Amino acid sequence: MTLLEEFRAGRISGEKVLHAFQAAPVADLGFARVDLHRSLRKGFPEVIFGEGKTCEQVAEIAMKIVQRDHRLLVTRIDAEHARAVRKKLPKAVHHQTARCITFEKNPLRPRPGTIAVLAAGTSDLPVAEEAAVTAQIMGNKVERIYDIGVAGLHRLLNRLEAIQSAHVIIAVAGMEGALPSVVAGLVNKPIIAVPTSVGYGANFGGLAALLAMLNSCGSGLTVVNINNGFGAGYAASQINALAAGELK
Amino acid sequence: MTLLEEFRAGRISGEKVLHAFQAAPVADLGFARVDLHRSLRKGFPEVIFGEGKTCEQVAEIAMKIVQRDHRLLVTRIDAEHARAVRKKLPKAVHHQTARCITFEKNPLRPRPGTIAVLAAGTSDLPVAEEAAVTAQIMGNKVERIYDIGVAGLHRLLNRLEAIQSAHVIIAVAGMEGALPSVVAGLVNKPIIAVPTSVGYGANFGGLAALLAMLNSCGSGLTVVNINNGFGAGYAASQINALAAGELK
Amino acid sequence: MTLLEEFRAGRISGEKVLHAFQAAPVADLGFARVDLHRSLRKGFPEVIFGEGKTCEQVAEIAMKIVQRDHRLLVTRIDAEHARAVRKKLPKAVHHQTARCITFEKNPLRPRPGTIAVLAAGTSDLPVAEEAAVTAQIMGNKVERIYDIGVAGLHRLLNRLEAIQSAHVIIAVAGMEGALPSVVAGLVNKPIIAVPTSVGYGANFGGLAALLAMLNSCGSGLTVVNINNGFGAGYAASQINALAAGELK
Amino acid sequence: MTLLEEFRAGRISGEKVLHAFQAAPVADLGFARVDLHRSLRKGFPEVIFGEGKTCEQVAEIAMKIVQRDHRLLVTRIDAEHARAVRKKLPKAVHHQTARCITFEKNPLRPRPGTIAVLAAGTSDLPVAEEAAVTAQIMGNKVERIYDIGVAGLHRLLNRLEAIQSAHVIIAVAGMEGALPSVVAGLVNKPIIAVPTSVGYGANFGGLAALLAMLNSCGSGLTVVNINNGFGAGYAASQINALAAGELK
Amino acid sequence: MTLLEEFRAGRISGEKVLHAFQAAPVADLGFARVDLHRSLRKGFPEVIFGEGKTCEQVAEIAMKIVQRDHRLLVTRIDAEHARAVRKKLPKAVHHQTARCITFEKNPLRPRPGTIAVLAAGTSDLPVAEEAAVTAQIMGNKVERIYDIGVAGLHRLLNRLEAIQSAHVIIAVAGMEGALPSVVAGLVNKPIIAVPTSVGYGANFGGLAALLAMLNSCGSGLTVVNINNGFGAGYAASQINALAAGELK
Amino acid sequence: MTLLEEFRAGRISGEKVLHAFQAAPVADLGFARVDLHRSLRKGFPEVIFGEGKTCEQVAEIAMKIVQRDHRLLVTRIDAEHARAVRKKLPKAVHHQTARCITFEKNPLRPRPGTIAVLAAGTSDLPVAEEAAVTAQIMGNKVERIYDIGVAGLHRLLNRLEAIQSAHVIIAVAGMEGALPSVVAGLVNKPIIAVPTSVGYGANFGGLAALLAMLNSCGSGLTVVNINNGFGAGYAASQINALAAGELK
Amino acid sequence: MTLLEEFRAGRISGEKVLHAFQAAPVADLGFARVDLHRSLRKGFPEVIFGEGKTCEQVAEIAMKIVQRDHRLLVTRIDAEHARAVRKKLPKAVHHQTARCITFEKNPLRPRPGTIAVLAAGTSDLPVAEEAAVTAQIMGNKVERIYDIGVAGLHRLLNRLEAIQSAHVIIAVAGMEGALPSVVAGLVNKPIIAVPTSVGYGANFGGLAALLAMLNSCGSGLTVVNINNGFGAGYAASQINALAAGELK
Amino acid sequence: MTLLEEFRAGRISGEKVLHAFQAAPVADLGFARVDLHRSLRKGFPEVIFGEGKTCEQVAEIAMKIVQRDHRLLVTRIDAEHARAVRKKLPKAVHHQTARCITFEKNPLRPRPGTIAVLAAGTSDLPVAEEAAVTAQIMGNKVERIYDIGVAGLHRLLNRLEAIQSAHVIIAVAGMEGALPSVVAGLVNKPIIAVPTSVGYGANFGGLAALLAMLNSCGSGLTVVNINNGFGAGYAASQINALAAGELK
Repeated sequence: MTLLEEFRAGRISGEKVLHAFQAAPVADLGFARVDLHRSLRKGFPEVIFGEGKTCEQVAEIAMKIVQRDHRLLVTRIDAEHARAVRKKLPKAVHHQTARCITFEKNPLRPRPGTIAVLAAGTSDLPVAEEAAVTAQIMGNKVERIYDIGVAGLHRLLNRLEAIQSAHVIIAVAGMEGALPSVVAGLVNKPIIAVPTSVGYGANFGGLAALLAMLNSCGSGLTVVNINNGFGAGYAASQINALAAGELK
Repeated sequence: MTLLEEFRAGRISGEKVLHAFQAAPVADLGFARVDLHRSLRKGFPEVIFGEGKTCEQVAEIAMKIVQRDHRLLVTRIDAEHARAVRKKLPKAVHHQTARCITFEKNPLRPRPGTIAVLAAGTSDLPVAEEAAVTAQIMGNKVERIYDIGVAGLHRLLNRLEAIQSAHVIIAVAGMEGALPSVVAGLVNKPIIAVPTSVGYGANFGGLAALLAMLNSCGSGLTVVNINNGFGAGYAASQINALAAGELK
Repeated sequence: MTLLEEFRAGRISGEKVLHAFQAAPVADLGFARVDLHRSLRKGFPEVIFGEGKTCEQVAEIAMKIVQRDHRLLVTRIDAEHARAVRKKLPKAVHHQTARCITFEKNPLRPRPGTIAVLAAGTSDLPVAEEAAVTAQIMGNKVERIYDIGVAGLHRLLNRLEAIQSAHVIIAVAGMEGALPSVVAGLVNKPIIAVPTSVGYGANFGGLAALLAMLNSCGSGLTVVNINNGFGAGYAASQINALAAGELK
Repeated sequence: MTLLEEFRAGRISGEKVLHAFQAAPVADLGFARVDLHRSLRKGFPEVIFGEGKTCEQVAEIAMKIVQRDHRLLVTRIDAEHARAVRKKLPKAVHHQTARCITFEKNPLRPRPGTIAVLAAGTSDLPVAEEAAVTAQIMGNKVERIYDIGVAGLHRLLNRLEAIQSAHVIIAVAGMEGALPSVVAGLVNKPIIAVPTSVGYGANFGGLAALLAMLNSCGSGLTVVNINNGFGAGYAASQINALAAGELK
Repeated sequence: MTLLEEFRAGRISGEKVLHAFQAAPVADLGFARVDLHRSLRKGFPEVIFGEGKTCEQVAEIAMKIVQRDHRLLVTRIDAEHARAVRKKLPKAVHHQTARCITFEKNPLRPRPGTIAVLAAGTSDLPVAEEAAVTAQIMGNKVERIYDIGVAGLHRLLNRLEAIQSAHVIIAVAGMEGALPSVVAGLVNKPIIAVPTSVGYGANFGGLAALLAMLNSCGSGLTVVNINNGFGAGYAASQINALAAGELK
Repeated sequence: MTLLEEFRAGRISGEKVLHAFQAAPVADLGFARVDLHRSLRKGFPEVIFGEGKTCEQVAEIAMKIVQRDHRLLVTRIDAEHARAVRKKLPKAVHHQTARCITFEKNPLRPRPGTIAVLAAGTSDLPVAEEAAVTAQIMGNKVERIYDIGVAGLHRLLNRLEAIQSAHVIIAVAGMEGALPSVVAGLVNKPIIAVPTSVGYGANFGGLAALLAMLNSCGSGLTVVNINNGFGAGYAASQINALAAGELK
Repeated sequence: MTLLEEFRAGRISGEKVLHAFQAAPVADLGFARVDLHRSLRKGFPEVIFGEGKTCEQVAEIAMKIVQRDHRLLVTRIDAEHARAVRKKLPKAVHHQTARCITFEKNPLRPRPGTIAVLAAGTSDLPVAEEAAVTAQIMGNKVERIYDIGVAGLHRLLNRLEAIQSAHVIIAVAGMEGALPSVVAGLVNKPIIAVPTSVGYGANFGGLAALLAMLNSCGSGLTVVNINNGFGAGYAASQINALAAGELK
Repeated sequence: MTLLEEFRAGRISGEKVLHAFQAAPVADLGFARVDLHRSLRKGFPEVIFGEGKTCEQVAEIAMKIVQRDHRLLVTRIDAEHARAVRKKLPKAVHHQTARCITFEKNPLRPRPGTIAVLAAGTSDLPVAEEAAVTAQIMGNKVERIYDIGVAGLHRLLNRLEAIQSAHVIIAVAGMEGALPSVVAGLVNKPIIAVPTSVGYGANFGGLAALLAMLNSCGSGLTVVNINNGFGAGYAASQINALAAGELK
């Protein structure tokens, strides 16, 4: 409010105040409003999408973020990227299956409520792990429930209690993508369905699973893009943060 | 063998024998071999596909078949077609939901083994009934198990025994088409999956269900065209006939 | 536990106990577990999808539900259906734009937190209203924010505060489907994107908007099927119920 | 039944019995029911899909299966995988064209009835061989009938007798995928059509053949996913086992 | 050449000659060259595509053509169009199945060589007849060979001689579109394949047949658009005219 | 006819004659009829599709064909294949751009009439050359007219006379595939349109050009598969052979 | 600036000033910036898309616009809509082919430079006319050049001068959509290509023409949605206004 | 006019004059008309598309163009190509991100008016830079405005003034492709939308962004092919040249 004080004190003209405000709104808008966003993702305002970036680029951006923030998430990286980042930031963790790098200066206490990450088959694990790692670094407890594809219903039913007691469920499946539909009939919590490109032939890079999930007859189910583990982890975290009363 | 006798008797030339044989093979081939096909579909060598045919056309073809054979199956008809056929053939049965007409001069004793026809939702019934009616008129016992979509798993599991005890299973589903996949994990019998065009939005006229079924991770599952209840009933009957030792 | 007592008393055999248990799990599973689902949708365990059903069918199912439950939701109906239901149930409300019928014996007090339903254009209103009516009958306060397509950004920004203060946001858009992406950059709450089939040419019945939403660069965004206002309203209600601490 | 005896003897409480049963049903369900499945695939409860797995992973899983079971099938492997497996299991057979590895401790006597595997062109052989090898390791006699594409009808007709005398027919074809349609008109046995991705241009990775097979005017024909030789071999084996009276 | 004479006579300037020539080339090009086209389609330089035109429009254009030319072809018309044309031109012929109208002032003697028009099923007849009528009015003898779908190979083989003796073959088929492929293996004449939209489910309006024909392994086969009987008839006539030595 | 003589002489039974004939038709059919095909492609009954074959395989098949026939055509090969073939068959010609190998023992005199091969851009040359080489080895004179894409209409018009004087025209184009349409308006000869996969973005591997050609408003135009230069060359040769009076 | 004066005078608090400014930017942004848009479309800030609106709705919105503005454009209407509007606004003009209604209180003098609207076939006229009517009501001279499809190149070349002298060219075509490509090679002005849904078979509702235009090898060509005559007219007008120095 | 003089002098026949003119029109047409095109692209009549060409080919064509013209543009090249060209033409500039090479003998003064090139994300830069480099070498001032994706609206609004003051806007975006729609609502200048293939999953190589842009509800927006930066730069330059009064 110093600008106005300066104006009242006669040190600056009214025109100058006006110009300052005219220039400001957009930035203000940006910060005042978009900033609210930070209540959720405090500590890592930017997530690095590693694919298509060189090792140097990833390492450099990572260092910049770490100078400013307490947490770091890099997705879609390979072993080379991980080595490059860990050279500069030795405490960074490389999640091999998830193809992610994370780093936390001082780990937060996770918020109450778990996010269950379900995967139909072992080939779906990279996507499931990307979702799990994302949800964890964003401050959530994660329960991994893997290898419960619908062709072996008993394995799914065996883990039902763990699934039912989660706050939010992420269901990852390739091929025919039936897992989220079956789960939706067994629980009453929000389910985020993630189709994967696992499969061959008329799978068309995950299209079969995507269409199946969009057409699910199960209620309470929403869908993210094919292989988008990060998007599912982020959305689940946001729902869990809302449930924890964090988001205003 | 008279032709050869005639030849030996010198009443016809060798050239004539040759020409007769050269002309014959194709027809012979047609009858001798294709005819074997009749062992399965005895009594109704031709099935009438009613869609796009006028009432008169359907009635006329139906009468021709009945003069020659003991059984009749007309698919994809509406009430008008049914009236037209039943005017000429009062004992013909109109299966309203299945949109079929059947007629049998003297009902056959069904072969052993049942064919279970499963349907996920009530909107899938026309296709399921087309499959059931087809399988029945071809001489099979049919067990209808409807409204067992995967979103209500308990309803499916409640009927598991009936499903498991069938010889062949036809699983009909629209929307995400997950039913056959789930069933495939619970039984060890041949399953014929039938996608239906039930659904909306990104269903694309049954494409979602079709792709899901083709990409099923369940073993022992084969697929027919969207809404092709007849094809499923026919194939199931063929498998059951093979199991009954009828096909040579 | 009486079964075991009977057994210990020697009144029934051990085999009988075993059979009872073997038969039980499935039914138990069905009821004990799936039933939890009712905590959310108390009063209307079944939603009627009106499309493709006759007026009589809709009215009859509606009466059955009302005898058992306190609330009723029928979606995808036209004026004819509405008349048929209101003849039997005069207090039922016909939501014309939403193409829905609702009925409540004694209206519940809505849970805290609002669900904001956003629509890009006036042609998207039927889908937006379906979402809004669904969310309301499921016990939520709904804030409708319509005609805020991205081609007129100032209209969207003018309503930003209302959008930001909601618990959950449903963003409905046809054509290029950009609304959810833009909103995702301005709020930190869960956003459910609903593509509509509004448009022409290379719109392909809503595919353009669906793909845009699945590929959104905005975080925290999940997607439902084309025109699936009901699914969005249901999922949003589930998230809001979780936030209200109702779901266990 | 010992649990109940223990209970009657007063050694355990009724509550403990209840808990045991409550915990059991799912597993029981799994084993009691899914286990029936083993009557067909006795000796190899799990098939390894090699694609995307490292040599070490394949070899390790293979050894685990062999410790427990009498037969082994690994599909979609290359020469490297084969070497890795045969290093640990020298008697394993590498089927080069089929890209499969099989192993049998003591070969079973094949069940009666042959499965005919037909292939249209030489490029379709990898898929055809995958089907053939699968059917053989599952206990069936297999008759390979290759290079009988419809453009050379005489080659197909020359082998007609062998085709007609099989119990089940697997028809593998790429390009325009016409082989199963033509065969369906000549035999009265179940036909499983397998589209392959062989072709170029508007073939779209096998889509042309897949659509042709789904739209076939031949009766008794069902379809599996593009290149899914294993699925076809498995389903054919299941049908043949049913015909042999093995499946209950 | 009068222009040049006028110039030499000094009656017009050289500039005028130049302008005339500069203006001329385009028109000349049009007439001198495009006109050669008329050697084939003498008597009906324009074919009327009736679909989407009113009865009055069709009748009027038809009369204009008849005033100028000896032959008339109108395609894609219904009974109403036919009545309107025959009112003004009583000798016009309405080909009901072909949905065409033709008229010839004095019938031409057909050129040598027949064009065989093959159709797989009875539903393909409208397209086959459009091709046949087109080929006839363009001066060719046509041999119709219908109902020879590949599911009944003997019917096709029975007519082989007639097919083999034609100059050009038009093969019309819907569903899986296999007929042209099979025929291509049996003859050594140019084959024009015409996919039809006959079918349902994953037929996608003829796409299945179109892809099958484009991917045919049969040599000497070219394809026209779905349902484009006219295009096939025209191209076949052009080939036959070339064979008759008419085209220079 | 010796069989019949033997029979008349009493040296074999009538049954034996019958069996021989029953066995024969198929083979006879194959040879008697399919063989007619050789009148066109005399000297190279089999064309080798090199793609996916090893150098050894190609060289071996090539040698077998050359032992039996006077001409050889191998398509879709690379430099390695060419070296392997020429090592065994030094006089074989490697057509680099066309990716073909040809060999003729004693070159035939080409039949009258030229086949014009048109290409829109320089990237279309591999496909155009495959067509040209195919047409030449099959006994036709070929006129290559390249780089005449519709964006430079004057280049096309400059070569119009050569195009118009050909017997058959092959028009090869990628991207928007407009060349055949424009040519169809300028000539009255059969045109075979060949779409190529040249392009990027929404080209979808040649689909754009394929659809354009199928939807061409130009008459007398038929289409082959994407990049199918061989198919176009073969079909053009067949038409030219018909025009030359060779095909009966 | 009064707000600041009030503040300096101590009549309002600094906080109030801040809130006012924080609230203001968005609205200001909306009006100050978006308003610039009106320099182009002065007099008709809103265009009514008639499709899917009732006659009453269209008439009512039209009257509201006319009260405020000098010009009116309604697109995608039928005769019923036109009657309803002209009842209230007798001087409104119904453009039948264009399916548009326009109204101008006092016609503007068109800006310099013409917009040429080209159409390939007569079936493309509704879309071409929509473009032409749009461009005219927005203040441009329009030259209509119709029936110049590429199959009759001479007609196009005959009109070349008129095409070349336009400022902006709108090229409308269905079927293979080749017109814009050919025109792009002949002129050096901006070309807006409009695909139409005219055609059948593998046209897929205009997709063939759309892809052809997107893949055009002609430079300077941009594309709008299928059948989007309005969009083309609007964009062309904008370019012409820029050329006239109107847009700042 | 010497030809006519020769004729008048009797040195050549009238027939010779006629033939000369008949031969001439096409060439004349080509040069007289197509040449007008050079007024825009003065100095580089041919742009080299580097993809798929060898280093030698690119370098050779580049040298030929430079001998004849003052400017050179090579697109879609890699570092190898650049080295090869710069070896022969050391002053050529390699634009790494744009994957282009340019060369100017004596730089032109840019025409008035800027072209703003907008890019949504950093991955879109190669396409944006291709557009920018193209527009610059064609004589335009270019303003690059990058990293303004709609998920961070404040960044876009911050640059609004620069965007609004441009003559033509090129908006490049992948993923959901929403940028051009949002910009279209904020400016009144021609916008050329360029979809990029940036994204994954249901992005389908840029199809999602392409469809979004074609379906944009923003007016004045036209679209080029996926990744077609060159096409956008060329079209924008053409519009700007028109605005500068250069094109006649």
